[in-house]
Amino acid sequence: MILTVTLNAALDLTYRVPRVQPHTTHRVGEIAERPGGKGLNVARVLAALGHDTVATGLVGGRTGDALRTHLAGTAPGVVDALVPVCGQTRRTIAVVDASSGDTTMFNEPGPTVSAQEWARFQGVYRELLTGARAVALCGSLPPGLSAGSYAELVHIARSAGVYVLLDTSGEPLRRGTAVHPDVIKPNADELTQLTGFTEPLHAAHQARRCGAHAVVASHGPQGLLAVTDEGTWRASPPARYEGNPTGAGDAAVAGLLSGLAEGLEWPQRLARAAALSAATVLAPAAGDFDTAAYGRLLSRVKVAKAAE
Amino acid sequence: MILTVTLNAALDLTYRVPRVQPHTTHRVGEIAERPGGKGLNVARVLAALGHDTVATGLVGGRTGDALRTHLAGTAPGVVDALVPVCGQTRRTIAVVDASSGDTTMFNEPGPTVSAQEWARFQGVYRELLTGARAVALCGSLPPGLSAGSYAELVHIARSAGVYVLLDTSGEPLRRGTAVHPDVIKPNADELTQLTGFTEPLHAAHQARRCGAHAVVASHGPQGLLAVTDEGTWRASPPARYEGNPTGAGDAAVAGLLSGLAEGLEWPQRLARAAALSAATVLAPAAGDFDTAAYGRLLSRVKVAKAAE
Repeated sequence: MILTVTLNAALDLTYRVPRVQPHTTHRVGEIAERPGGKGLNVARVLAALGHDTVATGLVGGRTGDALRTHLAGTAPGVVDALVPVCGQTRRTIAVVDASSGDTTMFNEPGPTVSAQEWARFQGVYRELLTGARAVALCGSLPPGLSAGSYAELVHIARSAGVYVLLDTSGEPLRRGTAVHPDVIKPNADELTQLTGFTEPLHAAHQARRCGAHAVVASHGPQGLLAVTDEGTWRASPPARYEGNPTGAGDAAVAGLLSGLAEGLEWPQRLARAAALSAATVLAPAAGDFDTAAYGRLLSRVKVAKAAE
Repeated sequence: MILTVTLNAALDLTYRVPRVQPHTTHRVGEIAERPGGKGLNVARVLAALGHDTVATGLVGGRTGDALRTHLAGTAPGVVDALVPVCGQTRRTIAVVDASSGDTTMFNEPGPTVSAQEWARFQGVYRELLTGARAVALCGSLPPGLSAGSYAELVHIARSAGVYVLLDTSGEPLRRGTAVHPDVIKPNADELTQLTGFTEPLHAAHQARRCGAHAVVASHGPQGLLAVTDEGTWRASPPARYEGNPTGAGDAAVAGLLSGLAEGLEWPQRLARAAALSAATVLAPAAGDFDTAAYGRLLSRVKVAKAAE
């Protein structure tokens, strides 16, 4: 089983409007509601790839109830082990401008989590780890949790002997990296913020010095750069694809962990991650991946060993 | 008892952000959730003025549940006689730009109402009218209802001998006006759309020819213009007030109907409506009225009889 953790889950709303114009009133033509939060996106892709997948994290309030209902409806292969909290799960509103295709986002902060709720979550997390091959810790932290919360979860997973991937940003990434996760998956900005370096290879090496055993940095349409103790690789899709990049990073995480669980070597894991990522950009619905495109891309992603 | 009808009730969300910038991601600092829809605003003001108030209309889904919970919490004097429907009550998102104070609105369309649900609502409406002194029909229509829906409700109220005020726009206003409501309360734009005239006095007279027994047109900070079979009046607040005009028109409706229920003559009703409207603009929270300001303004609103 692969476990995913989403501490700041969300009810994602997508609004389509003819054109976004600040300081005016927009009649929303079309609404979509779906479960959001990076760990839940990872879980959906893992389940679609046929892996036993358990999603935990924190949910609360009416928006939390709506999220769970949508999760059961849209990702039936994902076991819902979300832990209830008193506050209300945040909404995110993505307003899609039909004239330009651009998106304007409004993200609520999320519920304030108490110390008691955090302790209760950790208990559930420890239990779930006993059956897990790997765990993905993904996304932002809700209010109330300290910046060291992911570091605690990394430490617990490492102590339990479970392979742990961390995908977050800022101070929670810095602290989580310091306690030696098996892999971190920053994008270019997150990697620069962590290390102070803008050159990808330098930055990835520096991130390993900060504590990560391996670094898989995502560079949007250019693909992935992996620096590990077995070598350094670049995984590049055959072309640049136009589309919606929402969830592309989460699909890459699912690719890495599913490959690990199947005993694939780094180059094959990276090929899968890059192919899933590109197939997500190509999918008509944000955050889903295009199964046919994934199949086509998998053999065409180029994975090249790079100089250290 | 005064009855208010809100066919397209809403869960109103207010987001505060430092600055609205299209095609970027905004972290929302502060969220407020409250019951919305013009008839519910009218009901809240009526209850605050001490009137027995019953709110009916249509609600559904999790957003409808949230609306009812907030209504009970924020307007305990309002009797909730809302009728459940299968679809989900719409959300409205008001994004307040802290740098300018301006608001960007995103309004969901509302639930699609079936013919069976509409028939069930009409049954409840007829029963509630038996105990009502007056009824306010307010706001837009949800999908599924014909543009003649308010005309049906006006006709039923008139047949039951209940004084009926209609506050809507476009085709529903045109059709509703044709079946002789006691009063309509358009703003300047709605009145122009109804009559084709831009000059306020001409337009108001024309609206009476369209079928309304009386017309009370709201002209923002300039106050109200009333054309009735007892005379024509202008009600002007003592100054122009800066603030949030949300709910100012709904407060005017509450002023008119509470005055009617108390047996006040037109000039006193208009003074109350104009004072409540200005006191709503002055209130710190959108849609509430400032009680102290209302008291001060009531004696200072100027109501002048105008030439026909």
